[in-house]
Amino acid sequence: MLVYLNGEYVPAERAMVPANDRGFLFGDGVYEVTRAINGRLFAAERHMRRLARGLSGLAIDFPPSAQEGLLEVSERLLAESGLAEREAAVYIQVTRGTALRTHHFPPHGTKPTVFAYAWRLAPIPELRAEGARVITHPDLRWARCDLKTVNLLPNVLAKQKAHEAGAFEAVLVRDGVITEGSHTSIFGVVDGELRTFPLTHQILPGITREIALELAVEAGMTVREAPIRVEELEQASELFLTSTTADVLPIVSVDGRPVGDGRPGPVAGLLHAAFMELVRSETGASVEV
Amino acid sequence: MLVYLNGEYVPAERAMVPANDRGFLFGDGVYEVTRAINGRLFAAERHMRRLARGLSGLAIDFPPSAQEGLLEVSERLLAESGLAEREAAVYIQVTRGTALRTHHFPPHGTKPTVFAYAWRLAPIPELRAEGARVITHPDLRWARCDLKTVNLLPNVLAKQKAHEAGAFEAVLVRDGVITEGSHTSIFGVVDGELRTFPLTHQILPGITREIALELAVEAGMTVREAPIRVEELEQASELFLTSTTADVLPIVSVDGRPVGDGRPGPVAGLLHAAFMELVRSETGASVEV
Repeated sequence: MLVYLNGEYVPAERAMVPANDRGFLFGDGVYEVTRAINGRLFAAERHMRRLARGLSGLAIDFPPSAQEGLLEVSERLLAESGLAEREAAVYIQVTRGTALRTHHFPPHGTKPTVFAYAWRLAPIPELRAEGARVITHPDLRWARCDLKTVNLLPNVLAKQKAHEAGAFEAVLVRDGVITEGSHTSIFGVVDGELRTFPLTHQILPGITREIALELAVEAGMTVREAPIRVEELEQASELFLTSTTADVLPIVSVDGRPVGDGRPGPVAGLLHAAFMELVRSETGASVEV
Repeated sequence: MLVYLNGEYVPAERAMVPANDRGFLFGDGVYEVTRAINGRLFAAERHMRRLARGLSGLAIDFPPSAQEGLLEVSERLLAESGLAEREAAVYIQVTRGTALRTHHFPPHGTKPTVFAYAWRLAPIPELRAEGARVITHPDLRWARCDLKTVNLLPNVLAKQKAHEAGAFEAVLVRDGVITEGSHTSIFGVVDGELRTFPLTHQILPGITREIALELAVEAGMTVREAPIRVEELEQASELFLTSTTADVLPIVSVDGRPVGDGRPGPVAGLLHAAFMELVRSETGASVEV
């Protein structure tokens, strides 16, 4: 596997960062995962805008020209990794760079570290057909979940609990409401209304979340960005997750209790189809994805 | 500078970790900073207990025998770095290791990454004599601040604000009370009573905090582990910080407003002296430190 590290394309096993990189010492960085079909990035501008917002939120000095360069890096990684056909994804991480360890920022001029790689995105037809099981888990995260940083320990610990329970995802509960998943956004259909947690500091502004909302409005659904309370989960006729790598994925059970009739529902189905249609049209993909 | 990385002692510039180490990708690890005088570690057992607790809290599989080995690593780093005399400190970080990026834990048998180095601890006589200025800052951290993990972004951002304000530290405010500093614990003398935030998931169990409490009790002070409310700061006759590298450090102003008479107070002075006496007796140091 080929990866990109600070201007060079190297075999993955040679991608080493100094141990005193602030990514390693503090988790002091941001990241993005972008989807690609047939070598073309999907919603790249939205991902790059979010990355820019995260860099700005952490005051990491990574100029717009360097940010633009990441699109070329992504495309080259796809091409040179043999991922110019079918589904793939690109991971990009930017940290505040390598410096003597201090909690405060390193000296001006410290160069951010950039790490990126692409990989084959395996289709998940069985999971999509059967629907995902999820568990609930306390949302232990910090107060700036809107920044896509690599301070991911609470997400790691929650996802691990799901993994141990044989579930696909842990949906996070804060103050009695569902915020989002450990690495996904979550939607519910309650009383015929499509609901998802509003954009605040408490959730990540998911790109697929945003697009799903747009598609739902276009499809004439009643949509409201408002929290789903835990006790409302039982009333939900549908629940589904959205993410870059899973797009729109129906949830069929929460903590072992079925959602609706326990099968993937029509709203998730409709939005998944609309989403894939958009992906195809934006990337010019002619293949079945 | 010599550093330790996964069993080897190498020059700092050769201490490289794979970019897909979970420390770099997720901040998935814990760390300790231990003080040393004349090559002897201070309160090493307490630090190792806290490290063990953190590893257990994150379910990082790093056996007790390997943990014990870290003491030898620390001592060798001190010796081979020319730090066998006077004041030094040792940094140790253990991450969940290197693996294909998944939010959930990597396969059983993935070897934790261990990184450690020692450095000269510069004395801070002026700061100690003048006292530290601090700012208040919202406590944005997650719900498990009791674990000493490298998910340190909120600490970094708070400390940076202090740095920009020309202050030594940012003291964190959650729900109207002072929890602790970005990399220190905080004590106050309010109505003649020594107070500090109680041990919960909301603060780090500071080693110097713990020792300072013991010394205060021995000295016959009235001590209570209870939060200091922000509006009580004005009434405090003294405030001081504790940490491994700053031991007991008086605070003379908060957000530009003087604490007490604006000069280092007697309680901080007494506890600093008692603390240094303990350090000397435990490490056998005969030098003035």
